[in-house]
Amino acid sequence: MSDRSVAPVGAVEPLPAFELPYYVVVFSSVRTEGDRGYGETSDRMDELVKEMPGYLGHESARTPGGLGITVSYFRDIDAIEEWRSVGEHRAAQKQGRAEWYDRYTVHVAKVERSHGFARG
Amino acid sequence: MSDRSVAPVGAVEPLPAFELPYYVVVFSSVRTEGDRGYGETSDRMDELVKEMPGYLGHESARTPGGLGITVSYFRDIDAIEEWRSVGEHRAAQKQGRAEWYDRYTVHVAKVERSHGFARG
Repeated sequence: MSDRSVAPVGAVEPLPAFELPYYVVVFSSVRTEGDRGYGETSDRMDELVKEMPGYLGHESARTPGGLGITVSYFRDIDAIEEWRSVGEHRAAQKQGRAEWYDRYTVHVAKVERSHGFARG
Repeated sequence: MSDRSVAPVGAVEPLPAFELPYYVVVFSSVRTEGDRGYGETSDRMDELVKEMPGYLGHESARTPGGLGITVSYFRDIDAIEEWRSVGEHRAAQKQGRAEWYDRYTVHVAKVERSHGFARG
């Protein structure tokens, strides 16, 4: 998925606290040098994941130093498993390990509580 | 906690997949304009949290558009509760709502699985 925020600049806001139950997938990564087709595939994954039942949203940011954090939100573990097993996504994951990522960590976690704050 | 990556530029890498059990706290936010003492308090919180039993680490990134994502890792829910209740941290949270954040969302989640990848 893209390193760019889901929301366009000027309309940026955090995704909300969804109604329980739901899961987060934290993907923190450092890229290799160059694009190597990453951008195009990332855009395609952004499209594809939206079609998945149980997908709630995702948000991303990257430091100038190169650490990227993408957090994806899904209704349940089955939705995460289904997304992992989609053919195009599997191919992208494979290419990610072969070309795009120097290193990454994935944490899959079940949300127990969440809340939001917005200035009045 | 700071919007800067924990690791200095040049040594940037994702935090590892910790041994289970552990929790993640995802904090996604949009700041108000200006610093207003945020940077100093953020640095102080970075110091303080490291003293908390059960604290494993945290990593942060912010988009040019202003969406910040900080993911903190703790051994258990008690460690999260203890950190939430530290006096200086409570004061910082209060000032965050009063001055520093336009909006934010917090998700507290128990990690069920995790793994890492590093180029050989």
